[in-house]
Amino acid sequence: MDKKLLIKNALIVTINQNSDVFQGDLVIDNKNISAVGQNLQDDNAEVFDASGLIVTPGFIQTHVHLCQTLFRNLADDLSLLDWLQKKIWPFESRHTAESLRASARLGIAELIRGGTTTILDMGTVNHQDVIFEELARSGLRAAAGKTMMDYGDMPDGLKEKTSVSIEESLRLLNKWHNFDNGRLKYAFAPRFALSCSDELLEETAKLAAEYGVIYHTHASENRDETRLIEQRFGVSNIMLFDKLGAADKNLCLAHCVWSTEEERQLLKERSIKVLHCPSSNLKLGSGIAPIPDYLDRGITVSLGSDGPPCNNNLDMFNEMRLAALIQKPEHGPRAMPAETVLRMAAIKGAETLGLEDVTGSIEPGKRADLTFIKNDQVHSIPYENVYSKILYSAASSDVQHVMIDGTWVLKDFELITLNKTEIIKNAVNFSNDSLQHE
Amino acid sequence: MDKKLLIKNALIVTINQNSDVFQGDLVIDNKNISAVGQNLQDDNAEVFDASGLIVTPGFIQTHVHLCQTLFRNLADDLSLLDWLQKKIWPFESRHTAESLRASARLGIAELIRGGTTTILDMGTVNHQDVIFEELARSGLRAAAGKTMMDYGDMPDGLKEKTSVSIEESLRLLNKWHNFDNGRLKYAFAPRFALSCSDELLEETAKLAAEYGVIYHTHASENRDETRLIEQRFGVSNIMLFDKLGAADKNLCLAHCVWSTEEERQLLKERSIKVLHCPSSNLKLGSGIAPIPDYLDRGITVSLGSDGPPCNNNLDMFNEMRLAALIQKPEHGPRAMPAETVLRMAAIKGAETLGLEDVTGSIEPGKRADLTFIKNDQVHSIPYENVYSKILYSAASSDVQHVMIDGTWVLKDFELITLNKTEIIKNAVNFSNDSLQHE
Repeated sequence: MDKKLLIKNALIVTINQNSDVFQGDLVIDNKNISAVGQNLQDDNAEVFDASGLIVTPGFIQTHVHLCQTLFRNLADDLSLLDWLQKKIWPFESRHTAESLRASARLGIAELIRGGTTTILDMGTVNHQDVIFEELARSGLRAAAGKTMMDYGDMPDGLKEKTSVSIEESLRLLNKWHNFDNGRLKYAFAPRFALSCSDELLEETAKLAAEYGVIYHTHASENRDETRLIEQRFGVSNIMLFDKLGAADKNLCLAHCVWSTEEERQLLKERSIKVLHCPSSNLKLGSGIAPIPDYLDRGITVSLGSDGPPCNNNLDMFNEMRLAALIQKPEHGPRAMPAETVLRMAAIKGAETLGLEDVTGSIEPGKRADLTFIKNDQVHSIPYENVYSKILYSAASSDVQHVMIDGTWVLKDFELITLNKTEIIKNAVNFSNDSLQHE
Repeated sequence: MDKKLLIKNALIVTINQNSDVFQGDLVIDNKNISAVGQNLQDDNAEVFDASGLIVTPGFIQTHVHLCQTLFRNLADDLSLLDWLQKKIWPFESRHTAESLRASARLGIAELIRGGTTTILDMGTVNHQDVIFEELARSGLRAAAGKTMMDYGDMPDGLKEKTSVSIEESLRLLNKWHNFDNGRLKYAFAPRFALSCSDELLEETAKLAAEYGVIYHTHASENRDETRLIEQRFGVSNIMLFDKLGAADKNLCLAHCVWSTEEERQLLKERSIKVLHCPSSNLKLGSGIAPIPDYLDRGITVSLGSDGPPCNNNLDMFNEMRLAALIQKPEHGPRAMPAETVLRMAAIKGAETLGLEDVTGSIEPGKRADLTFIKNDQVHSIPYENVYSKILYSAASSDVQHVMIDGTWVLKDFELITLNKTEIIKNAVNFSNDSLQHE
């Protein structure tokens, strides 16, 4: 049955090629945006009044760990390798299917609440079906994959046999890739070079190419990490992916803080995607990624909040604001203009995931993934430039409605597909329970 | 008549000397906290249930420009001196009493909404009574003063005769200092060295000492500014205040980004106060202030959001989060622990303003300036350390109630002393109107 919605009187921030911004209307036909313009009419459509609201493409976070939401505020004041070994890996190793479900739900609730409609998620080693089940149920658009780890010291239950890791990844790919008309995608997710064998890294590269899916991993986040990688592989962290045969457009590298000139050329030449996580890079003391240089070179950079234990939110407004602010002391106040950063949060995220024909801008023919932001708030008025307003003065609490695939997932600040009361209760119970204490 | 309130079942973050945090109760007797503890009883008190709420001291922002709230989102991508000369001074010069009133109300609304209960405000040159009137009416605790400017190129209406600037400051001091049992204080506010004559800077120092009030100014914010100051005065910016006879405990210097070793020693020896504004320092490309070094030396550092055109919020949660995050890439992930930053936002702010016996912590005998933060939000659970939770995952939208001097100014997320609808209408009208266009 046809389901049409005419959204009237919105301030539409399209993020299309012309960066059109105008007061106008949208028609949503089932899952898709069918018209964008002014004074639109459609007698068959239900009318939705968006007066007083800014409508943007739903935000796209390209590096998230839903499995870690339950570790929020539990792993502060540590640098990357200690943070992993002392806190995150032990926590992840103690996840049951049910604690993982609580973690995923809590994270998805926060993401939708703050206007994020698409994520690239790095899962965990075990029970990965649970994350896909919760993504499926919630309505969020996502690429996700189980974390692969088969090398080095780590707690029991996380370290896998290489063959098992690959087989389980393939099983999950066959089960979940293109679920719900392509709303969910599979992405291979070897954690980072130090936790993976050469064989695992190479085999995964072959499989990602064979299936045409994302190869999602961490790279060049922290100086100790890059030193250890050079010692083990005899090559720098990003160049390693060239050696492994993984350096192509499907390679999504979180962080890229400490890249060399040669690596930056590789990022550009092979269309490798950079997933920038400013809060996480600051909080773990990793550094400030050279994003203005990446953008000057034409490298695709998108944004992610990483995980709550290194952030401690999953909030695109935080990440956009920081992505702009942290570059200005070194590169001057004109660096990272607001519009550039908002594009990183939307269409550049879509390009990163190969979803540029599906989402990331408000244009006819794309899926209706939309974030509605309350305009007149005491903390965000007045304004001239709507990009500045969104970037520097709006907040996730201003997000009033969110739609994904033409379906409301947040309406009048309330979650539609998730039960907030139950999510909060379960999250508190699990964190008080088994996760923290062995 | 006696008015007593027994607040039950709160998670109380005292910010006292022992950093006590506990689940407990508070008795408020008129303006004051009369008891803090567990299982408190008082048959004469009205009971207020604070279950599910964290109670902290009201936040103290020690560098704010209420007159600039109406310029929010209108002056982006500029460095300090351009920002002042091309945008802020022309805007300020066009303020009428009524536009200034709209600006002050909008700013105070945002501050209270986000849990700030005390500010040090730098006013504007003209109509300063309006700011005091609005501070008086709103219930906010504040030290404030008219901006003094008598030197250099600036728009008509801002540059004053030295004697007029001083006389007007004294008139305002006599009228407003200690208003409402000391809730309002006067603070002399020469804008910054470059906009003031030697005579103005010196005379103000004498008067601040004579009256025992704050000398509030900007210093060492930007490299161009510090170079111009050295050229004009033959001495570095902070040392200049020693030469002027102003270098004492009442001197409150906003920013102090580019200090020399000699200047840091002076800051410590003379108990000069540093007002740290991380968002503003980043957004104007000024730099990252050496706060960990100041703290190691025992210098008193507090926090402010500066003004909406360089931030673009007046949000203590933003400033706390940034104050912690921006130091970690250089100083490591353990720099700026959450508890230290929360102390900067409360008791250190009180010490800065000479109000350490009045506010800044939850202790019997102090005024009841309290911020109530909703605990179980999808973006802020779980947690172990309440300081991490407040700093890294809570947001101003979580502030449910605010009390100043024992009076509710925010209740159930709604402003009590201010009319939000009217404030928003006026702010939009004035910004569309005379301020932007000559």
